[in-house]
Amino acid sequence: MLVSVLLLLVTLCAQGGNSEERDEAPRPGHVSVVIVGGTGDLAKKYLWQGFFQLYASQVSSGNSFSFYSGGLSPADKATPVFFEILKAVSCPKDVSKERCALLREQFLRLAEYRQLKTLEEYQDLSKHIQEQLQQEGLAEAGRLFYLSVPAFAYADIAEKINSSCRPTSGAWLRVVLEKPFGHDFRSAQVLSTQLGTSLKDEEMYRIDHYLGKQVVSKILPFRIENKKFLDPIWNKHHIERVEIVLKETLDVKGRIPFYDQYGVIRDVLQNHLTEVMTLLTMRLPMNLSSSEEVLQNKLQIFSSLLPVGKNQAVIGQYQEYKMQVQQELNMTKDHISITPTFAAVLAHIDEAQYEGVPILLTSGKMLDERVGYARILFKNDIFCLQNHNSVHCKPKQIVFHFGHGSLQYPAILVSKNLFKPASKDAEWKEVTEHTDVSVLGLPISDYYVQTPSEQREAYSELISHIFAGRKDSFISTENLLASWGMWTPLLSSITSSFPRIYPGGADNGDLLDVHLKGKEISYNSEVVIISNDPMGGTSANNFHVIQGKFRGADMVSAWAEELVERLAADLQEAAEEAVREGGVFHLALSGGSTPLALFHRLALHHFSFPWRDTHVWMVDERCVPMTQLESNFRNLHDNLLQHVRIPYYNIHPMPVQLNQRLCVEEDGGALQYEKEIGKLVNGSSFHFGLLGVGYDGHTASLFPGRKMDEHGESLVALTESPIKPHQRMSLTFSSINRARRVALLVMGKGKHELITQLSRVKENPEKYPVTGVKPSAGSLVWYVDYDALLG
Amino acid sequence: MLVSVLLLLVTLCAQGGNSEERDEAPRPGHVSVVIVGGTGDLAKKYLWQGFFQLYASQVSSGNSFSFYSGGLSPADKATPVFFEILKAVSCPKDVSKERCALLREQFLRLAEYRQLKTLEEYQDLSKHIQEQLQQEGLAEAGRLFYLSVPAFAYADIAEKINSSCRPTSGAWLRVVLEKPFGHDFRSAQVLSTQLGTSLKDEEMYRIDHYLGKQVVSKILPFRIENKKFLDPIWNKHHIERVEIVLKETLDVKGRIPFYDQYGVIRDVLQNHLTEVMTLLTMRLPMNLSSSEEVLQNKLQIFSSLLPVGKNQAVIGQYQEYKMQVQQELNMTKDHISITPTFAAVLAHIDEAQYEGVPILLTSGKMLDERVGYARILFKNDIFCLQNHNSVHCKPKQIVFHFGHGSLQYPAILVSKNLFKPASKDAEWKEVTEHTDVSVLGLPISDYYVQTPSEQREAYSELISHIFAGRKDSFISTENLLASWGMWTPLLSSITSSFPRIYPGGADNGDLLDVHLKGKEISYNSEVVIISNDPMGGTSANNFHVIQGKFRGADMVSAWAEELVERLAADLQEAAEEAVREGGVFHLALSGGSTPLALFHRLALHHFSFPWRDTHVWMVDERCVPMTQLESNFRNLHDNLLQHVRIPYYNIHPMPVQLNQRLCVEEDGGALQYEKEIGKLVNGSSFHFGLLGVGYDGHTASLFPGRKMDEHGESLVALTESPIKPHQRMSLTFSSINRARRVALLVMGKGKHELITQLSRVKENPEKYPVTGVKPSAGSLVWYVDYDALLG
Repeated sequence: MLVSVLLLLVTLCAQGGNSEERDEAPRPGHVSVVIVGGTGDLAKKYLWQGFFQLYASQVSSGNSFSFYSGGLSPADKATPVFFEILKAVSCPKDVSKERCALLREQFLRLAEYRQLKTLEEYQDLSKHIQEQLQQEGLAEAGRLFYLSVPAFAYADIAEKINSSCRPTSGAWLRVVLEKPFGHDFRSAQVLSTQLGTSLKDEEMYRIDHYLGKQVVSKILPFRIENKKFLDPIWNKHHIERVEIVLKETLDVKGRIPFYDQYGVIRDVLQNHLTEVMTLLTMRLPMNLSSSEEVLQNKLQIFSSLLPVGKNQAVIGQYQEYKMQVQQELNMTKDHISITPTFAAVLAHIDEAQYEGVPILLTSGKMLDERVGYARILFKNDIFCLQNHNSVHCKPKQIVFHFGHGSLQYPAILVSKNLFKPASKDAEWKEVTEHTDVSVLGLPISDYYVQTPSEQREAYSELISHIFAGRKDSFISTENLLASWGMWTPLLSSITSSFPRIYPGGADNGDLLDVHLKGKEISYNSEVVIISNDPMGGTSANNFHVIQGKFRGADMVSAWAEELVERLAADLQEAAEEAVREGGVFHLALSGGSTPLALFHRLALHHFSFPWRDTHVWMVDERCVPMTQLESNFRNLHDNLLQHVRIPYYNIHPMPVQLNQRLCVEEDGGALQYEKEIGKLVNGSSFHFGLLGVGYDGHTASLFPGRKMDEHGESLVALTESPIKPHQRMSLTFSSINRARRVALLVMGKGKHELITQLSRVKENPEKYPVTGVKPSAGSLVWYVDYDALLG
Repeated sequence: MLVSVLLLLVTLCAQGGNSEERDEAPRPGHVSVVIVGGTGDLAKKYLWQGFFQLYASQVSSGNSFSFYSGGLSPADKATPVFFEILKAVSCPKDVSKERCALLREQFLRLAEYRQLKTLEEYQDLSKHIQEQLQQEGLAEAGRLFYLSVPAFAYADIAEKINSSCRPTSGAWLRVVLEKPFGHDFRSAQVLSTQLGTSLKDEEMYRIDHYLGKQVVSKILPFRIENKKFLDPIWNKHHIERVEIVLKETLDVKGRIPFYDQYGVIRDVLQNHLTEVMTLLTMRLPMNLSSSEEVLQNKLQIFSSLLPVGKNQAVIGQYQEYKMQVQQELNMTKDHISITPTFAAVLAHIDEAQYEGVPILLTSGKMLDERVGYARILFKNDIFCLQNHNSVHCKPKQIVFHFGHGSLQYPAILVSKNLFKPASKDAEWKEVTEHTDVSVLGLPISDYYVQTPSEQREAYSELISHIFAGRKDSFISTENLLASWGMWTPLLSSITSSFPRIYPGGADNGDLLDVHLKGKEISYNSEVVIISNDPMGGTSANNFHVIQGKFRGADMVSAWAEELVERLAADLQEAAEEAVREGGVFHLALSGGSTPLALFHRLALHHFSFPWRDTHVWMVDERCVPMTQLESNFRNLHDNLLQHVRIPYYNIHPMPVQLNQRLCVEEDGGALQYEKEIGKLVNGSSFHFGLLGVGYDGHTASLFPGRKMDEHGESLVALTESPIKPHQRMSLTFSSINRARRVALLVMGKGKHELITQLSRVKENPEKYPVTGVKPSAGSLVWYVDYDALLG
């Protein structure tokens, strides 16, 4: 039953690049392939075809194979179904009819259906393989299990494989998994941990079939081959934006029970589009065939992503979806699903190279056309003095066209006004004869076009990569978790968001067009959502900023977002006024989490803030090195200072670390800060101080239980906090109350009780330190959000 | 001869805005207007018309006038010419024929030609005015001298006015000057100083007639009226680029003797286009009518401009120019002028708001059409999912259309996909009926269009502003010098550059199209310059980077620019390697001017430099506060650190200032720096040290005449320089020679002698400290430019 074929190992490794960088090189011998779920849809459509092609490519060049289709049904029922599938596989074009018939016949003889349900059945399979090997006197090269089953079955099957089906020593085990790999970060982690008890990381091959698409797998080689053209332009100074788009025309009718659990973000964006994004933006590896280096460079991109939240996404749902859900899930007419079938998400990579470059990931069902592409649109950097239609005045772009669309074939297109790409790759050819077609706004004759010499199906590609042990074509655990780390916060934040309903197809018009506003995204057109569900309405917008009095001082109150907007605007006004008057603005900022929203607002919206003339001081600091995440300064640095153009010497962290130690009285850090203030700040009187207040009523790092005049005339003091880290450095009341303007920012439901108390108590700084804030010649304004004010 | 007219002072002031902010309010009475050069071209074409309109607008509302045309010719010759000019003036549209005839007759009666050559003639004029005032019993309001003469005559005339023609006390004196105001910064300064001895600053009105164009003078009001729409988008995140363009179709035939001295940059860019640039980008004044605030905000823009040099400009000359020069200047056929008649210049404003936004200023003679405009092109921030021709997918732009072009009238155009501009100004109206015309790529129906209700000539506008004392419409001395400060370095750097020759008109094709490459600009198309003049060739490019040995170490040598490119590339490679290996790169940088080019190269070209993982240390520092311009750190900060995304806590300035004093031994700054190095840098061994070498052979701040082992094992020491500031802090040889890699950068002809000496001497650190640089376990590479190497 076994046909021996020689495996020309050397050839294989040469094709795959540097063999040292791969997982263990396959040793010649026998390979057993097991598709668990071998009569399912995926196996029927792609997998057996892929394995047949693998077999055809290897038959005359080495090694021997046997193929098993595993399933839950008994063999007598499933075997005929299985062989029907096998009979439908087709040969590559360059194989003659006669040879094809022969190959197919051999392939069928090597294939067998086996019921794989119980542990015994797995043990039997293993025993069967062992016996075959002995009978034929063959060495074992490896065993390949392809799990084409629902993800919930993975852990169980992996355990069975581990306990009963491991190959003889020296041979490899590869277990192939299909998405979904979890539902969010947590579940992916759980699944990984479960699988990790049975399989080693290098034994797992997680498939993202996008990585098998010829154009996608060409992205890195293309970037390397054209490095000299791309290096000068592959950055924020030249890239206008990146679009990664997968549009589909079909709906998900018939697949609702699965789809409704996932939606488009988990189905397409978290995996396919994210992978494309990393390939486009990652640092180029020195060695393309080092899967470890490729992985590390990918991970670097994930760690540099700005958080993706509700303001970075718009979602939609095609109109028919609701009815389909009701039908397929047996729901009443009241039932509403808010699973998105369309999403556009804006990502930003917080690295100097890509700072500010919008990366748009978009996918949806029931759109106007079927097409997948990634487009790098470059800035228009030509000024045409007279003829605006000249070719070099046209858009400059590189399009990685995955397939379908107006072009109908996979290709890489480079605008002729950019550069003529290198064509070193024998497997790719240049297309020079063009039909009358346009791709993304440019007639195809305005592009240099490259296409694979021979189109290959993604699964066949990946199956050959599994066989070659090319792990860089698969999703590692780290990569998977990093990707879920990117998407999970967004998924959580939209769990109760109502998607925009779209009619589907060409009728969508411009309903799903999106507007990129700095770091945020929204639908471009406003629509009145006609919906009787409570989630469709707006809430916060009905309330506006109100002004009142609190504890005898002015109070501004609003919902959190508007409150922060208002505070940021007031701050900028104060800064501009101070700079106008005296050329400088001295700002003292508090630590803690409350001001974070303010920092973001300032960094992302206040571009004309006079940072060049602003000095930033700390209200208080924890006694930790400033590089630690706990440090107030670090917090301020990462969230604000890093993003604005403030001179280094205008930044004044508190000197909590002196002589290699933290907050030691005799090192005189507090006095040093006081002197620095005295030297630079007129009358040691800050123009603006931003304070928060803790649940216990503390402000700055001035905690309850101390006399207000404890620090006398000192402006800066070492203090002690009831919670860790205990040691602090803080401005004192003397210093705070010298400020010309103090803002007290209080936000969140958790502060409601305190606000209620504070509204009643008299001045009592020993119990409620915040009541000691009374600028002697300045003004105090409370900024209290509705959550804190109203509970 | 005098007709008394009442001046309704109150009305005038109300029109002009807040009168307190203006120069002294005109007191009612008699006004004497003197145009020196009153029969010249400008006076004939614009000035008398402007003064007639002023007269017509004031005749029925107050004050009295007399008009004098002064000139060098005797009165009997010039008077008939003068009256021919006056007879040609026309009335505003809304004045009836009869009234017009009457006004013109009155105007003629008020006018007189006088020879103004000698001091006596000026004294006579003044006496004449005095007598008239006495005869008519009028109080004097002021005297207005309009100098429509070549600039070389200004100082002399101003002196005569000052010594003989000052009005009676309490009345104002205004002297109006026409460009050119100097030839470069120095000459403008000299001229200003000369004029300053005769006239007060507030008495001088320098005309830039662009400021009288209705659309130009509307720029600031438009920005204020539409603040709520513009504030969110008027910044680097939304503006793609700014174009300020003045295209002319005429040549300069007949004006060569003047023009060939100036060229297009001095003629148009330094004044008109620069003024428009400041109006578009300056911070909005709180009070638009405060000329002082407007001026200060304009000056702020000048101080924020990145230097404009050879790489920020391209120049051209129309083909016929050469022949015209030969004819008009009586030159032989060999004579070549390199005066540009076309220029495109790229400016950048180094403020957070506009960082990276290209501002292109372009003007030329003999182009394809006559048009002037400023265009603010916004980034394309809409993603159109299906219909790419939808209106909101089209370009977004605001066009300040000064006049001519396809539109033919002055207007402000705002793309409909941006916003509908406010229309509060009664003097402006909305245009809703459109002809079938396109403006800058968009059909006019895609714009909101505003135009002045009544078109007024720039000179007439400005003459009424002179009369109203509106100084914000004129160029102050500070503004003028700031503008020359911007342009002079460019003008100097292109004194021997050969302009691209263009045929003129539509034939220019895309010959003058320009390519914006980051902060640099070039012609987009390469042309072979067919020219037998020596300036047309290339020189530096014939040489390439060579590698060799110097003092037993490796040496890289090239022309300065290539050398710096190479060093920057080597530095990045070292950084990437270190980060790959250990996650961090420790870089020690020298002070002085030599590394500046390297800093610029790194900041502007090395976008993927791993700054996030780089620590920057100082090789040496001067004992001055780090905010001073002398500070090495300040130098490093302004030229490099400020422009890259390096975390605050990765920056390590030398602690030259401790306890409010500089480099005091007992404060232990050197030891403190040594400890910091020891704590963060593995083995205190920097990955890369960049050193320079002084004329005396010193390196770091290690000067001749000291023993090499003077500092023993110390890594950092206080040292003394023979030149000021004497006190220094420096890495020692112990520290330098621990580095893994040391680069010694030597550039400029001035270093040639030293390099020659160094190539001969043995190791002798006491005489030539640089010879003590011998990394014990690392490598040393000399980077020496051809100027230093070859002299």
